[in-house]
Amino acid sequence: MITSRRFTNAQIDRLLRPKSVAVIGASDRHGALGCTLLNNLVQYEFGGAIYPVNPKRDELQGLAVVKDVADLPDGVDCAVLAIPRAFVVDTVRQLGEKGCGAVVIYAAGFSEAGKDGARDQAEIARIAARHGMIVEGPNCLGCTNYVDRIPLTFVEINMATPPAGARAVGIASQSGALAAVIATTLHPRGCYVSTSVSTGNEAASGVEDYVEWLVDDPATHVIAMYVETFRRPAAFLAAARRAREAGKPIVLLHPGKSAKAQESAATHTGAMAGDYQLMRAKLAREGVIFADTLEELCDIATIAVTCDSLPGANMVVLGESGALRGLAFDLAQDVGLDLLHLDDENSPELRAVLPDFVPVSNPTDITAVGLSEPAIYTHLLRALLDDDRVGSVVASIIQSDPITSKIKFPAIRAALDGGKVSKPLVFAGVDEGATVPPEYVADLRAAGIPWFPSTERAYRAIARLADLAKRDLADRSGDPIVLDGLDAVGGVVPEYRAKDLLRTAGIEFPRGRFVAMDQGAVQDAGRELGYPVVLKAQSARLSHKSDAGGVAVSLADDGALCQAYRDMALALRTYNASIEYDGMLVEAMGARGTEMIVGAKHDPEWGPVVLAGFGGVTAEILKDVKLFTPDLGVEQVRAGLLGLQQAPLLIGWRGSPALDVDALAELIVRVGRVMAGNPRIREIDLNPVVAYPAGQGVMALDALMLVED
Amino acid sequence: MITSRRFTNAQIDRLLRPKSVAVIGASDRHGALGCTLLNNLVQYEFGGAIYPVNPKRDELQGLAVVKDVADLPDGVDCAVLAIPRAFVVDTVRQLGEKGCGAVVIYAAGFSEAGKDGARDQAEIARIAARHGMIVEGPNCLGCTNYVDRIPLTFVEINMATPPAGARAVGIASQSGALAAVIATTLHPRGCYVSTSVSTGNEAASGVEDYVEWLVDDPATHVIAMYVETFRRPAAFLAAARRAREAGKPIVLLHPGKSAKAQESAATHTGAMAGDYQLMRAKLAREGVIFADTLEELCDIATIAVTCDSLPGANMVVLGESGALRGLAFDLAQDVGLDLLHLDDENSPELRAVLPDFVPVSNPTDITAVGLSEPAIYTHLLRALLDDDRVGSVVASIIQSDPITSKIKFPAIRAALDGGKVSKPLVFAGVDEGATVPPEYVADLRAAGIPWFPSTERAYRAIARLADLAKRDLADRSGDPIVLDGLDAVGGVVPEYRAKDLLRTAGIEFPRGRFVAMDQGAVQDAGRELGYPVVLKAQSARLSHKSDAGGVAVSLADDGALCQAYRDMALALRTYNASIEYDGMLVEAMGARGTEMIVGAKHDPEWGPVVLAGFGGVTAEILKDVKLFTPDLGVEQVRAGLLGLQQAPLLIGWRGSPALDVDALAELIVRVGRVMAGNPRIREIDLNPVVAYPAGQGVMALDALMLVED
Repeated sequence: MITSRRFTNAQIDRLLRPKSVAVIGASDRHGALGCTLLNNLVQYEFGGAIYPVNPKRDELQGLAVVKDVADLPDGVDCAVLAIPRAFVVDTVRQLGEKGCGAVVIYAAGFSEAGKDGARDQAEIARIAARHGMIVEGPNCLGCTNYVDRIPLTFVEINMATPPAGARAVGIASQSGALAAVIATTLHPRGCYVSTSVSTGNEAASGVEDYVEWLVDDPATHVIAMYVETFRRPAAFLAAARRAREAGKPIVLLHPGKSAKAQESAATHTGAMAGDYQLMRAKLAREGVIFADTLEELCDIATIAVTCDSLPGANMVVLGESGALRGLAFDLAQDVGLDLLHLDDENSPELRAVLPDFVPVSNPTDITAVGLSEPAIYTHLLRALLDDDRVGSVVASIIQSDPITSKIKFPAIRAALDGGKVSKPLVFAGVDEGATVPPEYVADLRAAGIPWFPSTERAYRAIARLADLAKRDLADRSGDPIVLDGLDAVGGVVPEYRAKDLLRTAGIEFPRGRFVAMDQGAVQDAGRELGYPVVLKAQSARLSHKSDAGGVAVSLADDGALCQAYRDMALALRTYNASIEYDGMLVEAMGARGTEMIVGAKHDPEWGPVVLAGFGGVTAEILKDVKLFTPDLGVEQVRAGLLGLQQAPLLIGWRGSPALDVDALAELIVRVGRVMAGNPRIREIDLNPVVAYPAGQGVMALDALMLVED
Repeated sequence: MITSRRFTNAQIDRLLRPKSVAVIGASDRHGALGCTLLNNLVQYEFGGAIYPVNPKRDELQGLAVVKDVADLPDGVDCAVLAIPRAFVVDTVRQLGEKGCGAVVIYAAGFSEAGKDGARDQAEIARIAARHGMIVEGPNCLGCTNYVDRIPLTFVEINMATPPAGARAVGIASQSGALAAVIATTLHPRGCYVSTSVSTGNEAASGVEDYVEWLVDDPATHVIAMYVETFRRPAAFLAAARRAREAGKPIVLLHPGKSAKAQESAATHTGAMAGDYQLMRAKLAREGVIFADTLEELCDIATIAVTCDSLPGANMVVLGESGALRGLAFDLAQDVGLDLLHLDDENSPELRAVLPDFVPVSNPTDITAVGLSEPAIYTHLLRALLDDDRVGSVVASIIQSDPITSKIKFPAIRAALDGGKVSKPLVFAGVDEGATVPPEYVADLRAAGIPWFPSTERAYRAIARLADLAKRDLADRSGDPIVLDGLDAVGGVVPEYRAKDLLRTAGIEFPRGRFVAMDQGAVQDAGRELGYPVVLKAQSARLSHKSDAGGVAVSLADDGALCQAYRDMALALRTYNASIEYDGMLVEAMGARGTEMIVGAKHDPEWGPVVLAGFGGVTAEILKDVKLFTPDLGVEQVRAGLLGLQQAPLLIGWRGSPALDVDALAELIVRVGRVMAGNPRIREIDLNPVVAYPAGQGVMALDALMLVED
């Protein structure tokens, strides 16, 4: 997956690290966008040149005012347009001609507001393309580089600059409100923001471009995003892969799970809603972490930026009450979190640090003994952090009051005194609202221990991060398979040709003979294959064979086959006399088994994806399906299949045998490899795929294929 | 449902409103339970007599010390035992003999610690029963009456006494830690606690008893509970019904959704895990609100105690950003919350208070206009609160900073200036962590507007409360039906008798004839009924007829029926020659349709419940079933069925006809009425029940019944 970037970092630097800034519409009127913006620049002592532009002023905030855009020097890095919508296009044109590197457009009323707005926005895009100019907006809140202290926004901000060496979150958001909200939420948690960009309507540059820059930004360690529509999916997938390779987790909040949210996004941004689940599958494949809510987005980012490492797969809880054990189990199940099984036998190191009356367990309930012997917190947590089986540790603590906090917090913090550890330690308060002196919380955070007001919050966030650890993102074993002979087909490919093509990729179908529409030929085929057989009419124009009477099954002998042939010939003529038939497919009748469905489609935006589930209505009604990207290996597909709600049927339910999940996974992998190797294939539909008991394989009974003409 | 109470309020008053308290094991040693307890009583100026008991002291905290329990006056209301486990039983005996009304036992090591502990606990129960004494604990944290300022607990507490007229939450918890945690969480939110009781091992009195008292307590308006096992389910159901009638919502946190939590509870309390889902169905029927997490428990209680009324069914959101609209839709779907549809046409009153450029919608996105015109908050919220379609209102607000808060909070609070309103108004911050001056939050709360740090939290809590509004809890239209002839049966009831019995209750089965095991009789029955028919062997000892070859279907004529009879007779002998048969059931073959299952069981603890779902594996694997209490009317059962995951199959899916949901609901109601009217019936199993298209009814093909011998 090689996707060239639209912009170099140097180009985006002119927006995010400008050396000179023009404020078009600078003002001294309180509340005016151009006033707050100029205040921000002056207050935070922007080190480069500032050019306030205002025809009616000579001086603003002690700075010399430029009367007109025409009077600006050439080559200003960034111009921020705090002017009414009506003047935007002409101003952008002027700035482009003067070699301005980037513009920020606050004004709304463009593509989100109808045809005229869309036309003007397209014109801005054209101007930007002509001059290689970065355009943030229109309809945006601007951007802030907290590292270099450059606030190009009209909202008042808290310029919390990350100290040298501190980890920080980069924010790329299509909503200005959300960009602000994320920073507002992270800062009081002691989490730093490196740079925040709100992209608005994305006339010429979008979240994909800024994420590229953030991946390369040494001050950014985690990327938090709010996106309603990816305009350049392939570019984002490439950026996400680079982010993962750079060890920078991307956490994404993207409404659209519900139909109403999709509608709302369409109204809000004018963008079309894509296939939400397909997008999720593609992004998850590249290690993007999905947050379901704003709370989750910030909580996940908090852990990722506060801790030196991400959670592994199995969590352990240090608790102080038996009641909270049961609640922990319920919660872990609800959020999909694996609690490591610990007991006295399998954990001698833990046994050694606990009082006799406290059994090793998970959650371990140390009771109230920590109040009199706080060293237990330190020792137990250290032992857990040193334990290779443990992916993350939560200290689930009753904080009560300042006296209790004074005993517990330092003892817990001391667990990290040994220096960096390879897994997160998260503090989760049980009694939200307890009066904890803020310095204790700040101490924890400074030591790299995120503090959460409730266990629920901590568990949810860890669960999303631990999901990541469960998948082998580096596995790209599903190599593309190029189908010989695909060049010769286009449009709807009849079953017999689709099967011939897919058979070369190792996908198994019943033995069959394709013969002319002739009773003798059909009968010969039946005898050759051995009865019982299936008879199916073949034509590119007949995608629903059954409706036309074009399928006959369980044909037990010559007589039945010939009768079926004659009946079918009549039925097909009656159905639609104008359809031309390629011939007849005679196939050995497949044995009965559990019916599955396997489909694949090539999304024009996101590329190919394979879907699998059980046959019948559950796939559709219960959405009990899994999506697989085409580069996955068998192990990962297998794991995905075992995540189906009805997976008990795969592994053997109530005495029925386990099914051949390996063979099913292998088939799915092969379909994916075919999709990846043949971009002209729009769709493949294998329905049903019959799964047999373990070791006996799977068999696709039907095959539909749609190929680009 | 009439269940007599174990204790009168006057008896429980001796624990919760004592006029005299003995502190057995009073101490001046810092950290000793008897020290903190005595401190608590003295510090909060307990108005009654205090008798510290300690053999080695003459005076403690300025109070005269009693050397021995024997020296206590008779008839002390409450004695708190802050003494080691070993002395507990004898002390309780002494106290009982001295007419002490209640004891609080902190010590652990009773039923949760093995056989000896259980024996001692049973002895405590016997002593209590003999003297009509209330026993809190053992293994508990004590209780606190915040209204009368009586702290009988050894933890330091915040004695926040509810002012006169204030609403307050009563707490009944089997875990002392949780009781403390709930109070710690509620207090900083400006929510008052009336009385908190931690019940521990419940030797002689339990949560059921204290809830009875709280229902009658004028200072309690909402009841928050943590329970691991209900020891007296019927008593609690009765109390819950009384609570509902008194307008006091009960919010319950009860671990046990996951198998591991059930195990953990068994270890923790020594109690057996019951049927969790059955319990939930029973409690939901009486209006108990289930919280899934501790967060939810406190959040639900916060809304219920802060607002004058509970949320109705449809929520409306005032928002300030388009991005948050989409997130609101996703979240509402996730938590099961209905957002009322609003638009310019259907809401002229709302249209009138909004600026032209803001369309009426839900969520309504008022943009940032409220910053310059804060009256919009007041007017829009008032209009929403006055709108009868609206069940609750959430103001989902970007708080930003103190300046922004100063503009928005008072304008929102002013919406309630007109006085009490009939639905909750909830403030949900969007930017958790924003620096909001605490006085603004306190102002909101004092006005009856709960403040939440995030929309997620507010939505979840409102969703649970709104669920309550959607159900008609007063409907008890499912009157018991007493079956004539049930006295004559016991144990496993053979199909033909079960069907005869249930038919009298209006449950429909295929036409049939029960005949002797005789080919001629069978053939006569077949002719009389008309072919095709089904033949089934009948015996109380044959509960799995099919396994024994005792079922033959689709018998088309005399020949097929007679052949089937002969084959069956042979098969039955081969299967088990010792089984005696009552005879043969010949039935008209039912038409095909969608197979459902309907079952019922009489839980020894919780009473009868009916289960319904689709046939096949989805009921079991996907748990796609609904449970119904036997007193529900058809409308509510119908609504429950439409909540099945596969409900699209009931209302017509992809061109298949809608099924007769009314008839299915009616059948379920009748099964429930039979269960309610005949407590000897342990189980009824109708599998399958075939559902036909709307108007064509349903038909139970098989019937199993188990009756107490």
